[in-house]
Amino acid sequence: MPELRRGATNHRWVIVAPERGRRPSDFEQKGTELAHQEPANCVFCAGHENETPPEVYRSPSSDGQSWDVRVVPNKFAALQHYDELGRESVLGIYDQMNGVGAHEVVIESPDHCSQIGDMTQQQALPIVEAYIHRLKALMENPWFRYVLLFKNHGKEAGASLLHPHSQIIATPIVPQEVRESLNIAKDYYERKERCLFCDIMLAELKSGERIVEDADGFVTWAPYDSRFPFELVIYPKQHSHDFTTMDADQRAGLASVLIRTIKRLQTLLGDIPYNFVLKTTPNPIVRPGKPGYWTTLAYDYHWRIAVMPRLTRVAGFEWGTGFYINPMPPESSAKYLREVEFPSSH
Amino acid sequence: MPELRRGATNHRWVIVAPERGRRPSDFEQKGTELAHQEPANCVFCAGHENETPPEVYRSPSSDGQSWDVRVVPNKFAALQHYDELGRESVLGIYDQMNGVGAHEVVIESPDHCSQIGDMTQQQALPIVEAYIHRLKALMENPWFRYVLLFKNHGKEAGASLLHPHSQIIATPIVPQEVRESLNIAKDYYERKERCLFCDIMLAELKSGERIVEDADGFVTWAPYDSRFPFELVIYPKQHSHDFTTMDADQRAGLASVLIRTIKRLQTLLGDIPYNFVLKTTPNPIVRPGKPGYWTTLAYDYHWRIAVMPRLTRVAGFEWGTGFYINPMPPESSAKYLREVEFPSSH
Repeated sequence: MPELRRGATNHRWVIVAPERGRRPSDFEQKGTELAHQEPANCVFCAGHENETPPEVYRSPSSDGQSWDVRVVPNKFAALQHYDELGRESVLGIYDQMNGVGAHEVVIESPDHCSQIGDMTQQQALPIVEAYIHRLKALMENPWFRYVLLFKNHGKEAGASLLHPHSQIIATPIVPQEVRESLNIAKDYYERKERCLFCDIMLAELKSGERIVEDADGFVTWAPYDSRFPFELVIYPKQHSHDFTTMDADQRAGLASVLIRTIKRLQTLLGDIPYNFVLKTTPNPIVRPGKPGYWTTLAYDYHWRIAVMPRLTRVAGFEWGTGFYINPMPPESSAKYLREVEFPSSH
Repeated sequence: MPELRRGATNHRWVIVAPERGRRPSDFEQKGTELAHQEPANCVFCAGHENETPPEVYRSPSSDGQSWDVRVVPNKFAALQHYDELGRESVLGIYDQMNGVGAHEVVIESPDHCSQIGDMTQQQALPIVEAYIHRLKALMENPWFRYVLLFKNHGKEAGASLLHPHSQIIATPIVPQEVRESLNIAKDYYERKERCLFCDIMLAELKSGERIVEDADGFVTWAPYDSRFPFELVIYPKQHSHDFTTMDADQRAGLASVLIRTIKRLQTLLGDIPYNFVLKTTPNPIVRPGKPGYWTTLAYDYHWRIAVMPRLTRVAGFEWGTGFYINPMPPESSAKYLREVEFPSSH
């Protein structure tokens, strides 16, 4: 049964989810290559729908015979629904909570090998629609303080399946890094009456040296403080704190931007492992009189997507300090990615 | 020329050190196995002393003919000495500093394959002595606000060389995670007049379920909020904020504890990749009248070593939120490691 733990020497929560592996021998360095996974044995492929837990969302294909995107609960969930949140102290010094939450898998295509960088806008749009639909649905639950959307592509990026998919985890706390940036954004807004993230975007557009593209209502650049080579962020150009409020144009725009961003990386670097992560407002549900909940509506936040290629290994230095050595200046990353040439269809 | 950067949305500094890799093709997924490195081509092996930068420390062997441990500047330094610290603003919104600092390599043995887990106390003690000597020497420099000691063992843990070595990086800032735990320790001390870390150690000793060993003046356990399977911490049992103040008994004790800790992990799990990181007080030099420096003496801190086996891959979830999924409860990790049986020589 998963649980959430917080130690006494930092503000970080850790999910302890023993279902995902138990004995020392489970951690042997296995040589399994994702490339060896085949459609015939893949539970995410079309025709294997009854091998996943029952779906919570389906985007039917245009002919109505099949589907474009399915969302199913993760069979090996890091967090699960419970009756009680159950916060308590441990040994008088630590904090513990039941592993209340949800963990879902977004199956991005019925096709085993259809990667987002090679999709058309028509193929990628249902993925964005599925993200929005599930985020909205999970935010109906007042226990879920934050809903995290992310994609692991490639073994080095933490994927255990080749079939294109992303994941959604709803948590009963606002993760520390999100909380920190929320607080910084709030302070900045109180001081300046301007959105911190809008100011950053405008400064980047003015400077231009880290910009990769400015198109379809989104700006993509290599962050000034990139931790990793070819790290990127995608910001909606119009201020918005909440990913789920995108209109039809913005959804279509985001689908195109995601395709082009991955295509740029893959054209330049090959089929590299990467992660992307959505940062958006915490669940804004205010529950008057109930203690322990985050009640800020966070209009001063700005949603965005961080894209992190996994080309370097994170070592002792990083784990011990939370600071990073990046061997590639983001100005160079941006220049290389800006200059990638596309076939005219993109 | 390395530089330090801080963005506007968090408190994290990043070292951008372009010397370490420059073109996209430098990041191709290379298959180089450390095991293929041979003593004949190894610059850290005895007989190759003139192939490293000039040594900054040497522990002579007992016969005076050779050496047990050497410390040399890292040829590919993440940070370097400069004349100016040079803090400035970038685009009015970010922070930048020259990459002032030092980066050294501790060559732990003249022998290519001598791993710490297989050493005798007599072999490991000069490593501990070298650590203390170099930390003290680097803390003479008032620009170096923190001196970080760490070890990457195995490719998955970020090592690029097989020959046993650890690394020391001196930085002109106190890393965010260290700063956070310093602040928490300070608040706790002000409230309770007790050391937070001593309280944690006493609670762990009382509970016992996460303790691996209590011997030679050190207590080793699996932290309650372990991020990784088989993660461990080693605390000096006697309160001390400063690693460099250990007396002869404590140095000998630590050498033994390090040997046994690595031996336990390797007996249970094989030659796994791992990191260890020292957490100790920032450079306590107070410079009255000079702004921008950390001036706390941090007697309320407690030095310790974190040991992190690299058995799981860190994925999008972790990068996006700073919170972690650990598939192995630390109570199980501790039980397995506690029960490891040693040959009587340990």
